[in-house]
Amino acid sequence: MAKINKSTLEKAAKRISPFIHRTPILTSKGINDIAGCRLFFKCENFQKVGAFKYRGATNAIRQLNRDQLVKGVATHSSGNHAQALALAAKIINVPAYIVMPENAPQSKKEAVAGYGGKIIECEATLESRESTLEQVIRDTGAVFVHPYNDENIIAGQATCAMEIYEEVNNPDYILTPVGGGGLLSGTALATHYFSPPHTSVIGCEPAGADDAYRSIQAGKIIPSVHPDTIADGLLTSLGDKTFPIIKKYVSQIITCNDQQITDAMKLIWQRMKIIIEPSAAVPLAVILNNHEIFRNSRIAIILSGGNIDFDKIPFI
Amino acid sequence: MAKINKSTLEKAAKRISPFIHRTPILTSKGINDIAGCRLFFKCENFQKVGAFKYRGATNAIRQLNRDQLVKGVATHSSGNHAQALALAAKIINVPAYIVMPENAPQSKKEAVAGYGGKIIECEATLESRESTLEQVIRDTGAVFVHPYNDENIIAGQATCAMEIYEEVNNPDYILTPVGGGGLLSGTALATHYFSPPHTSVIGCEPAGADDAYRSIQAGKIIPSVHPDTIADGLLTSLGDKTFPIIKKYVSQIITCNDQQITDAMKLIWQRMKIIIEPSAAVPLAVILNNHEIFRNSRIAIILSGGNIDFDKIPFI
Repeated sequence: MAKINKSTLEKAAKRISPFIHRTPILTSKGINDIAGCRLFFKCENFQKVGAFKYRGATNAIRQLNRDQLVKGVATHSSGNHAQALALAAKIINVPAYIVMPENAPQSKKEAVAGYGGKIIECEATLESRESTLEQVIRDTGAVFVHPYNDENIIAGQATCAMEIYEEVNNPDYILTPVGGGGLLSGTALATHYFSPPHTSVIGCEPAGADDAYRSIQAGKIIPSVHPDTIADGLLTSLGDKTFPIIKKYVSQIITCNDQQITDAMKLIWQRMKIIIEPSAAVPLAVILNNHEIFRNSRIAIILSGGNIDFDKIPFI
Repeated sequence: MAKINKSTLEKAAKRISPFIHRTPILTSKGINDIAGCRLFFKCENFQKVGAFKYRGATNAIRQLNRDQLVKGVATHSSGNHAQALALAAKIINVPAYIVMPENAPQSKKEAVAGYGGKIIECEATLESRESTLEQVIRDTGAVFVHPYNDENIIAGQATCAMEIYEEVNNPDYILTPVGGGGLLSGTALATHYFSPPHTSVIGCEPAGADDAYRSIQAGKIIPSVHPDTIADGLLTSLGDKTFPIIKKYVSQIITCNDQQITDAMKLIWQRMKIIIEPSAAVPLAVILNNHEIFRNSRIAIILSGGNIDFDKIPFI
């Protein structure tokens, strides 16, 4: 299992705090009434680059030594990790090489380029992404920063829940979405070390990309083969560093379908007047469809991000 | 001129503070960089009912006596004032009669009904709205609460800028949208009594509903005849209570067109991840199109509301 202890998390929080936003925790009486419980929304959609991913990317980059930094960092991603790594590298004047599939949306490419990332296009297959990344690393000497299967990334994502436990008294549950498991495993570790003893961690997953659910059932990693969900930040599968933490510290994984995700997303837009991406709506969707578990509880939810193409809003 | 002095405003702030949200002031480095100035966004889109209107409605209702309250309150509005009055009445168990044109969007009627308002439909003409309201008042004995041309409403809206001056050091400008002028006149009075001496108040108006601009030019109220703008909260004309305050205390009215409003609205959605309605984007649109006035300034902006039908987002 990844060697992340209480001190690792405390150091990560201290390391990244000058560079990240301490995001607000919002509440909504209207949504509490509908859900029948008390919800505390940690707004990582207001984080730099619009997603919690900036925490992990910053924690990872800030631990590289001078020789490594000169050669830069690299990753393959078409999502929020790409933007996060690009910005975290830019503000210390380090190159970030981002391998992106040629069919990635133009808006995503522009966002990465806007944060100063150097985009290398590849074919839209995992093989091409990995081989292109390997070539980039050989050519440049850049350090690969994995989107989630990395102890520094996990520790960085854990800092979000640490902030929650400083502000929310006695939550019964903390819920996060789960894709590759970086946020969920970090949250689980933060809960183990910093929450009240009765706080349970629940991973929330789209039914169309339920590899975490199936992996926990099977007791081993079962990757997603053809994930299909509007929650486009949650298509990846658990890694060998995130899975053992989730297996040990997460109470359960609960899935929900795309219509439920859409409904929860629309409710947050309407009632809270904030913009979240579909992936961020998955925990509320789980709560609204499992009243028997959550009724009358105090629940912290991590709203993981707010990056969405406005021409792809699922309820319009 | 309306008799609103420093003490009136202090009492209004104290009166309504238990019932309203103290809304946050957000900043955006990205938008500051684009605008070339430092902006402080007062988020009344997060106010109860999603708009600053709840301040004025609460201040007005809380000053009625027991006999008046029993008979309830009434207004004609298809916008945020209708929702604000309905909710402010509901939480003290008082009936609110809301006259709405029969062609008002279903979503607006549902919102008012959701806050407990009793809807009375009328024809979609000003004459029908006024005659229907008069009939309702005759039938019920309810007290008419005007959307803006009312000293208690103006004092209630002033509390928003008072909160700004408690938190933002030395703003050079404060900008609000202007429709009927309740928010602008209240902001002007709050600035007169509570801001540093150099803070200028600027009213921001859609070119398609520029009655405030023309009224100030002419030195008398010139009503809008056929206002046409996407800023649907700003279609009304100044009243005889708001105009004199604006004339005396507001530095200037600046207009912008609907495309500029749309661009500013989209920028706030994209960069700040918050939902504002078109009317709330008018001040940023004015700033982005008048760099020569605002460059390097410190500017407070009131984001007036966040109520929008998601099938009418102008940039989608």
